[in-house]
Amino acid sequence: MSDNKSNNTTETSLMSRIVSLCKRRGFIYPASEIYGGLNGFWDFGPLGTQLKNNLRDAWWKSMVECPPIGPDGKPLSIVGIDTSIIQHPKTWEASGHVGGFSDPMQTCRVCKKLFRADHIEDMLREAPWVIDLAETLVVSAYDLNVTVCTDKVINWLQRKGKKLAPGLAALKEQKPEFNKSITFLELLNALAYKTTPHSTLHTPHSLLPCPNCGGDLTEPRQFNLMFESRVGPVEDDSGKVYLRPETAQGIFLQYKNVLDTSRVKPPFGVAQVGKSFRNEVTPRNFVFRTREFEQMEMEFFVPPEDGMKWYEFWVQERLRWWEEQGVAKNKLYRHEIADEDRAFYSAATADIEYLYPFTDPNFGELEGVAYRTDYDLTQHQKFSGVNLEYIDQETKNRYIPHVIEPASGLTRGVLVLLCEGYRYDEQRASPEWLKIKPSLAPIKAGIFPLVNKDGMPEVAEKLYMDLRKSMICQFDAKQSIGKRYARMDEAGTPFCVTIDGDTLKDSTVTIRNRDTAQQERVSIDTVKEYLNVKCKM
Amino acid sequence: MSDNKSNNTTETSLMSRIVSLCKRRGFIYPASEIYGGLNGFWDFGPLGTQLKNNLRDAWWKSMVECPPIGPDGKPLSIVGIDTSIIQHPKTWEASGHVGGFSDPMQTCRVCKKLFRADHIEDMLREAPWVIDLAETLVVSAYDLNVTVCTDKVINWLQRKGKKLAPGLAALKEQKPEFNKSITFLELLNALAYKTTPHSTLHTPHSLLPCPNCGGDLTEPRQFNLMFESRVGPVEDDSGKVYLRPETAQGIFLQYKNVLDTSRVKPPFGVAQVGKSFRNEVTPRNFVFRTREFEQMEMEFFVPPEDGMKWYEFWVQERLRWWEEQGVAKNKLYRHEIADEDRAFYSAATADIEYLYPFTDPNFGELEGVAYRTDYDLTQHQKFSGVNLEYIDQETKNRYIPHVIEPASGLTRGVLVLLCEGYRYDEQRASPEWLKIKPSLAPIKAGIFPLVNKDGMPEVAEKLYMDLRKSMICQFDAKQSIGKRYARMDEAGTPFCVTIDGDTLKDSTVTIRNRDTAQQERVSIDTVKEYLNVKCKM
Repeated sequence: MSDNKSNNTTETSLMSRIVSLCKRRGFIYPASEIYGGLNGFWDFGPLGTQLKNNLRDAWWKSMVECPPIGPDGKPLSIVGIDTSIIQHPKTWEASGHVGGFSDPMQTCRVCKKLFRADHIEDMLREAPWVIDLAETLVVSAYDLNVTVCTDKVINWLQRKGKKLAPGLAALKEQKPEFNKSITFLELLNALAYKTTPHSTLHTPHSLLPCPNCGGDLTEPRQFNLMFESRVGPVEDDSGKVYLRPETAQGIFLQYKNVLDTSRVKPPFGVAQVGKSFRNEVTPRNFVFRTREFEQMEMEFFVPPEDGMKWYEFWVQERLRWWEEQGVAKNKLYRHEIADEDRAFYSAATADIEYLYPFTDPNFGELEGVAYRTDYDLTQHQKFSGVNLEYIDQETKNRYIPHVIEPASGLTRGVLVLLCEGYRYDEQRASPEWLKIKPSLAPIKAGIFPLVNKDGMPEVAEKLYMDLRKSMICQFDAKQSIGKRYARMDEAGTPFCVTIDGDTLKDSTVTIRNRDTAQQERVSIDTVKEYLNVKCKM
Repeated sequence: MSDNKSNNTTETSLMSRIVSLCKRRGFIYPASEIYGGLNGFWDFGPLGTQLKNNLRDAWWKSMVECPPIGPDGKPLSIVGIDTSIIQHPKTWEASGHVGGFSDPMQTCRVCKKLFRADHIEDMLREAPWVIDLAETLVVSAYDLNVTVCTDKVINWLQRKGKKLAPGLAALKEQKPEFNKSITFLELLNALAYKTTPHSTLHTPHSLLPCPNCGGDLTEPRQFNLMFESRVGPVEDDSGKVYLRPETAQGIFLQYKNVLDTSRVKPPFGVAQVGKSFRNEVTPRNFVFRTREFEQMEMEFFVPPEDGMKWYEFWVQERLRWWEEQGVAKNKLYRHEIADEDRAFYSAATADIEYLYPFTDPNFGELEGVAYRTDYDLTQHQKFSGVNLEYIDQETKNRYIPHVIEPASGLTRGVLVLLCEGYRYDEQRASPEWLKIKPSLAPIKAGIFPLVNKDGMPEVAEKLYMDLRKSMICQFDAKQSIGKRYARMDEAGTPFCVTIDGDTLKDSTVTIRNRDTAQQERVSIDTVKEYLNVKCKM
C-alpha cells in the first residue's frame, strides 16, 4: 500500500478536476446528458475515443498480433475472436450467472435505494453525511473503528444531520442518547436504527446505515446483476436472453471451433475486446464502475499440470504491460485474493490494482488474473452435451484444458491513463496537462504557423498534409502560440511543431516537447521521421 | 443492374460454399453453436475478427484520422466518438423508434412464424418450396408475374409439395382446381388460401403465402423492432430502456458537447463505430441480416443551404471508398430511393448496393447515404428542451444544422469482402481462395522453411520474429509447401515467403504472390520493406 496519505477532501477535488477536464476537452461526457443523463452510463468524446482506441490497439497488438515470448523463448500462440453480446441463455446457466452467484443486495427502508451489500462499507466512507459527521467529531471517516466522543452529535443531528441524512432514525427521537465510549461505526448504527439492531440480522452488512440518507437497510437479498431482454416477437419467457456480463463466456462457447479451425493447441490463448453490461445498482466514481463498459479479456488454455506456472507468468506479464503503458510501478499493486474470497472454482486469483485518487491510500481494481481451472469448459460440456476435451495427437491424452484469464477493463484502463497522466503546474501556460505516453496520446502533434501570415500558414499546411497520412495531428493557427501549446498540453499531445520566420529562411522548425516544455530546432525534412520514431514510444 | 444472370441453384450453392469456408477457416461461426445456436446471431472467429478490425480501421482512418479532401481543397473536419448502447429512453421517443415507425409484421397462421411484411415477397423468391415448384413448372421463381401452366401442380402437391410446404391449404382439398391462365403469384395464392382471398384484406402483402410452410398469413400488424431491457432493480416500466437500433442517435445527443469542446464548426462530421441491435424477426442470408450487428456511421453537420451539395459529395465519396477496398465498380450500384419510399423527413437518400450472390441478379443494401435534414436535432431539441442551434460567431446566424449521414454496415462490409474475394479455380492447390486487398487481409504473410531441417527453420524463425513486430504473419513448417500455400490462399494471405536451400547460400528467398501464384526471388534483407510497402496497398 502507498504511503501517500492525503485527506479525502483534496482527493475528491483532484478527481472532480479530472472529471471536469474530461468533459471540457471532450474525453468523456455523461451519456444522454441532454435528457438529464442515465446513471451508470458514459460516452467517450473525440479525445477519449482516440485514447481508448489506442489502448485497445496496444492490448490487441501485445496479445494477438505480436504475443509475448513464452518461457521457452518462442512467441505464445494467441488468436483473436469477436463474439455476440447476446448468446443462448443456457450459457449463463452453465456459467452460474443465472441462478448462481448473483450478489446480495440491500434496500434502504427509507429512501428505497438498492446497494450491493459488499459495497456499502466503502460507500459509507465516501458518503457526504458520514464525512461531515467525521469532521465534526474530528475523526477520519476512513477508519470506522476509531473511538469517538459523542458530545457534539446531538448538535450535529439538529443542524447538518437533518439536511445531509434525513433518513436517520435518531432524528425522530426526542432526546437520543449515546454511549460515551463508542466506535464511529457503532455510532452510525445507533443513529440509523431505532433500537439496538435485533439479533436476527445475519451479516455484518445489515448493521450499516444507508450511505445515501442514513436510513435502515433490509437484510441482504439476491439480485440478478445481468440485463434481461427478449428476442423475437413472443412476450413470454421463451425468448428471454441476457446481455453478457463478461466477454469470457463467448470465448468458452467457441473454444472448440477455434481449436478445430485455427491450428492451435494448448498452451494457446483466445483474446477478445468488447462491451459487457452489468445491472449494478451502485454506479460510482466516474467511469470506474459503470453499467455498460468495455473489457479486454484473454483466456489461456493450458494442460492442467501447467496451470500454476502460467498463472504466475500472466500476473507478471500483465503488471509489466501496464507499466509499459506508462503507469508508475509504485501505483500498481498485486493483490493476491485470499482463499475464502475467491470464486469457489478458482485455484488462484490476483487483482492488479491501481492507486486511484478516490481509493487513495487504498488501491482499486484494474485487472484480474484468475486461474479458473477447468470450471467453465466443464460446465459448458455438461450443459451442452458437447465433448470439449482436447485430444493431444502425439500422446493421445484427452483432457479439458485449464484456463488462466487476464481480464482487464478497457474503460477502467482509460480512467487509469487519465488519472496517471493528470498534472497540475501553476508555472505552465496551461496548469492542467496530461502526461500520456506518445504512442497512446490521442493527438500526436500540433502543427502551428507562428503567425497566420507571411507564408507561414502555407508551409505549415503543407507539412500537415504530409503528416496526417501517417499520424493524427492537428493544424491550428488561432490565437497566441502560448494558448495553442496550452490546448495541446490539456489534450496530452506530446509534440508541437511551429513554423516561424526562420523556417522560411533555413527550412528549420521548432519541436516543443510537452513533458519538458522545451523546444528544439530541427530541419523540416526530418520532422516526419522524428515524430514517427518518438510516437512509437 | 448486372447482366450476370445465373440460376438460383448455383447462387445458393455459391453462398453455401462461402458460409462453409467461413466456418471451416474460422472467419465466422454461428453464435452459441454448442447450444444449438441462436437465430440471427453470429460470432467472428480469428480470421474474421482480424478482417473486420482491418475494415473498421480503414473506415476510421478515412473518416477520422485522415478525412477526405473537401470541395475547397482542404481536409474535412471530422471527429470520432463512442457512445453507449443504452441511452435515456426519451432518445427513442424523439427519434421516432418508440411509438413511431415500427415495421408492419405478418404471422403465419399455420407455422406461427413472423415476417416483416415488406420482406415476404423477396423471401418467397428464395423459399425452397417456391423454387422447387418454379422448377417443376419450368419458370423462374424470380418473376412472380410470369404466366404458368398448372398441369403439373397436382402431381407436385402430392409429392414434393407435401414435404416442402406442408402449410398449403390446397393439400387439404380433395381435388384442387386451378385456372389455366394464371400468373405464378396467383398460383401461389390459390395454393395457400382456401378460397379466393377475401376482400377485407388491406394490403397486397397479405395475399402472399408463408415463405416457410406455404400457410396463410395474418394481416400486417405493428411490431417493435428494438430490444427492450430494464435498468436498476425495479421491475416496473420506470426503468425501461432499449438497446440502440442505430449508432446515429448517440451522435445527435452529444452533438452539442462536441461542438462546445472540439473547436469544430459546420461543415463538420462526427463518426462512430459500434454495435446495434434490432429485434428483427426474419434474420437471413448469413450475416446480411442479423439481430446484433456492427455499424460505421458518420453524421455530417452542414449549413441548411448546403445540404444537397454535401449529399452528392458523400454518395460519390462512399462509392469511391468501397471501390478502394477492392469492390469491383460494376458490383456496386447507386440506388436512389424514390420520394414515396424515403423516410418522411429525408430530402434525399441513396442506398449503395452490392451484387450479393443471394440477391443476384439484383443488388442488396450495403450502405445508406441519407440527407436527414434537421429532423433529428429538431426532435431532440423539442424533447429535451435544450437549445441545439449553432451560432455562427462571424455572421451571428443561428440555425439547426442539416445532416448528411453515410451509414454503413461493418458486419455487412465483411460479408461483401468475403463474397467479392471468393474465388474457385480447380487448377490451384486450393481451389477455393480469397482475393482480399493486402491492407485488409487478416494475415499479411506466411513464413515457411521449405523443409523443417538443414538450418532452414532457424532462418525462417529469425525472419518471422523480425516481421511479426510490424505485421501479422504466420510461421508454418508443417506438411508440404503446396499445402501451406493452399492454407494461406484460403485465408486470403497475399504473400508467402519461403526459405529454401538457396537461402542458406545466397541469402535470397522466394515470395509467392497469392493472386498470380507466381514466385519471385528477393534478398532476405529486403523482405520486410517489400511486404510493408505491398501490404499498405
